[in-house]
Amino acid sequence: MNSSALLTDRYELTMVDAAMQSGTADRLCLFEAFARRLPHGRRYGIVAGTGRLLELIQAFRFEDSELDWLRDHGVVRQPTLDWLADYRFSGEIWGYQEGEAYFPGSPLLTVESTFAEGVILETLILSVLNYDTSVASAAARMVSVALGRPIAEMGSRRTGEQSAVAAARAAYIAGFDATSNLEAGRRWGLPTMGTAAHAFTLLHDSEEDAFRAQVAAFGPGTTLLVDTYDIKTGVELAVKVAGTELGAVRIDSGDLPTVVAAVRDQLDSLGAVNTRITVTSDLDEHTIAGLSGSPVDAYGVGTSVVTGSGAPAAGMVYKLVAHKGDGRGADAGDWIPVAKASVAKASLGGRKRALRRIDGTRTAREEIVDVQGTGIDLPVDLPSESHRELLVHLVNGGVPDERYLGHAGTVLAREHRAAVMQELPIEAFRLGQGEPVIPTVYR
Amino acid sequence: MNSSALLTDRYELTMVDAAMQSGTADRLCLFEAFARRLPHGRRYGIVAGTGRLLELIQAFRFEDSELDWLRDHGVVRQPTLDWLADYRFSGEIWGYQEGEAYFPGSPLLTVESTFAEGVILETLILSVLNYDTSVASAAARMVSVALGRPIAEMGSRRTGEQSAVAAARAAYIAGFDATSNLEAGRRWGLPTMGTAAHAFTLLHDSEEDAFRAQVAAFGPGTTLLVDTYDIKTGVELAVKVAGTELGAVRIDSGDLPTVVAAVRDQLDSLGAVNTRITVTSDLDEHTIAGLSGSPVDAYGVGTSVVTGSGAPAAGMVYKLVAHKGDGRGADAGDWIPVAKASVAKASLGGRKRALRRIDGTRTAREEIVDVQGTGIDLPVDLPSESHRELLVHLVNGGVPDERYLGHAGTVLAREHRAAVMQELPIEAFRLGQGEPVIPTVYR
Repeated sequence: MNSSALLTDRYELTMVDAAMQSGTADRLCLFEAFARRLPHGRRYGIVAGTGRLLELIQAFRFEDSELDWLRDHGVVRQPTLDWLADYRFSGEIWGYQEGEAYFPGSPLLTVESTFAEGVILETLILSVLNYDTSVASAAARMVSVALGRPIAEMGSRRTGEQSAVAAARAAYIAGFDATSNLEAGRRWGLPTMGTAAHAFTLLHDSEEDAFRAQVAAFGPGTTLLVDTYDIKTGVELAVKVAGTELGAVRIDSGDLPTVVAAVRDQLDSLGAVNTRITVTSDLDEHTIAGLSGSPVDAYGVGTSVVTGSGAPAAGMVYKLVAHKGDGRGADAGDWIPVAKASVAKASLGGRKRALRRIDGTRTAREEIVDVQGTGIDLPVDLPSESHRELLVHLVNGGVPDERYLGHAGTVLAREHRAAVMQELPIEAFRLGQGEPVIPTVYR
Repeated sequence: MNSSALLTDRYELTMVDAAMQSGTADRLCLFEAFARRLPHGRRYGIVAGTGRLLELIQAFRFEDSELDWLRDHGVVRQPTLDWLADYRFSGEIWGYQEGEAYFPGSPLLTVESTFAEGVILETLILSVLNYDTSVASAAARMVSVALGRPIAEMGSRRTGEQSAVAAARAAYIAGFDATSNLEAGRRWGLPTMGTAAHAFTLLHDSEEDAFRAQVAAFGPGTTLLVDTYDIKTGVELAVKVAGTELGAVRIDSGDLPTVVAAVRDQLDSLGAVNTRITVTSDLDEHTIAGLSGSPVDAYGVGTSVVTGSGAPAAGMVYKLVAHKGDGRGADAGDWIPVAKASVAKASLGGRKRALRRIDGTRTAREEIVDVQGTGIDLPVDLPSESHRELLVHLVNGGVPDERYLGHAGTVLAREHRAAVMQELPIEAFRLGQGEPVIPTVYR
């Protein structure tokens, strides 16, 4: 992996530079990532990006090319350059497991390290968590209204070309079944899908020629795109060319409830009773919900999922919440909670622990943020039947927990999300704007 | 640069595979990227991403690692793998110069190549143009309401970590003066900025200690962040520590018009009459416009610029608009315009030329899209005083025009944007929703 070290705001390095001069760079600190609110009146959010982030933190290394550029541009001084050259994150990171539901104030990620080691990761942590969580939070709502029908992410063309890979992964964690993005298939082991676009039909001398070419290449089980010219003619031709064994037709335009019903009738009347209908026309959670009574067999979603369906950034911030004095290790003293008081941006100092209270019906009722302030180690015991610990140890002495990385970590996150969704109150799945489905309680 | 070849939807490769079997893969084709509408009732858009795209097309190569993955996952057959192994884009690309204004239907990019060579670039072209253009189109509006005050992009944490680099570049093209993103500084030669965040103040035993540390490190010309606790106290401390030579104070919260006025009075009364005021609190084009009468010296913009201020994807599509028969070169015959007829997604076939009609006052009046259909070469003569050719030759026989690449290309795009803005009717700069400021006329 290429170095991720310059995917960073300049002031992170400038602060390290100044803190090294003032002798505060080595103070032990706690940083916390959290969101003050859920985007867009949503009822819950889904954490994503964590596994990807852990890999990027491993790649956060200043090699000669980074150091030379920083030196040439006078960003930091020589002692800081020397320190950066040796930079390896060596601290602790706890966080909500990837795929976990979250609410306003949930302490999603806690970094314990020296000031310099922790502050320098701020931009990278927020870029990854804000984007991926935005996508997963939108995607989870689409999955819940798809009512078990397969749903594929195909929005690569509507977001930055590298964000597209992250979006495919985040949507998969949120319960999407596949992606069109090949790099996401390679990088994260996700299932990929896709057959043909309108260009393929337009290339050929007739729609029938195009269908014949596609069926010759992939067999009758393929998905034919039937709306290039006229849907009724397209469906007729599709069954004529592929026979009643035609795998699926794809519809990418029109008033979908009407069109889908007509296409189903037409397919059935032509004997293609097992041919599936895939729809892909500017779908979002609302249009998918509107198709719940229609004979749709699969959804493909583009723009809305990769842009967070109206909330393209999850609004997470990363704040210093506590530090110790100037000693190290046992001499460092107690944690000193710190918080800013800026209007509408106040933060809550101190180390947090997070528990979800689950009632006797296995339903989540409260997000409990336990503000301990001083150095109680995580986790501690609480009755397991009624409180679920939300923080997991992601990085131990600079070493990430392998379970959360790569393909396996992505699958684990997807499974965790599925389990967590079972726990949420049913009101979580209402699409309309409203309050978080469970309150965040500080104690 | 790493290979960009798998930053692609699976169906692009599947179509190549089927077309190779059906003998249509080598048909000469024209593909066109355009937007059916401007996002969000805007009056104009700004094209960005072109220079970045040309470099990514150069990196669109299938090496062993890509080919192995495609083979192992059965995406395409062996003849297609052999073709991909040799893939180098060898065709022609014309397009709007980066930084150009655009309107609905403007033919932003035209790719002339075989079907296979051109279709396979679709996803990459759209990812880059949709994201970068979204950012530049939002950024240009912020620049115009900043009324010449410096404006910096600092939204890296609110978009994917690689999109952040692209966003910095797009905002710079749109007239932003600097970015916080270091990789954008290294990769594209953009000016970078940034000093300290709230964490730096919270790290120290007092706000005064933090200010002393920062001034000791960077001198009194630095920018002190004064809103961690109480702005009035913060400003007083800042001047006490740095003296009246303090470079700037930064305000990141509060009701800005009120706060800015009070801080200016306070600075002046303390004798810090040259100390500048930078504001950075969740700004967008509307809040910036609301500060036009306030004594703000510089703006820093985050979320809204990197997410396109409500329109995170520019809505561009890439359509096959014409092809020739099966012959090659002189034998290939005439261009055959093709277009799909899907409801609300109809496209206009044929090769386009684009001209902007400029009246005697040097004001743009019409976007003229000249639908020629058959193979007239670009450009042709028209009276230069009244019509400006909008398409430039970006790639010639597979070779990109060097002028549009790298740092120089980015600066050229920024200059072009500045010149183009002079040409737009004054109504272009109204923030309210409305119609495109000039009509698109087909002829």
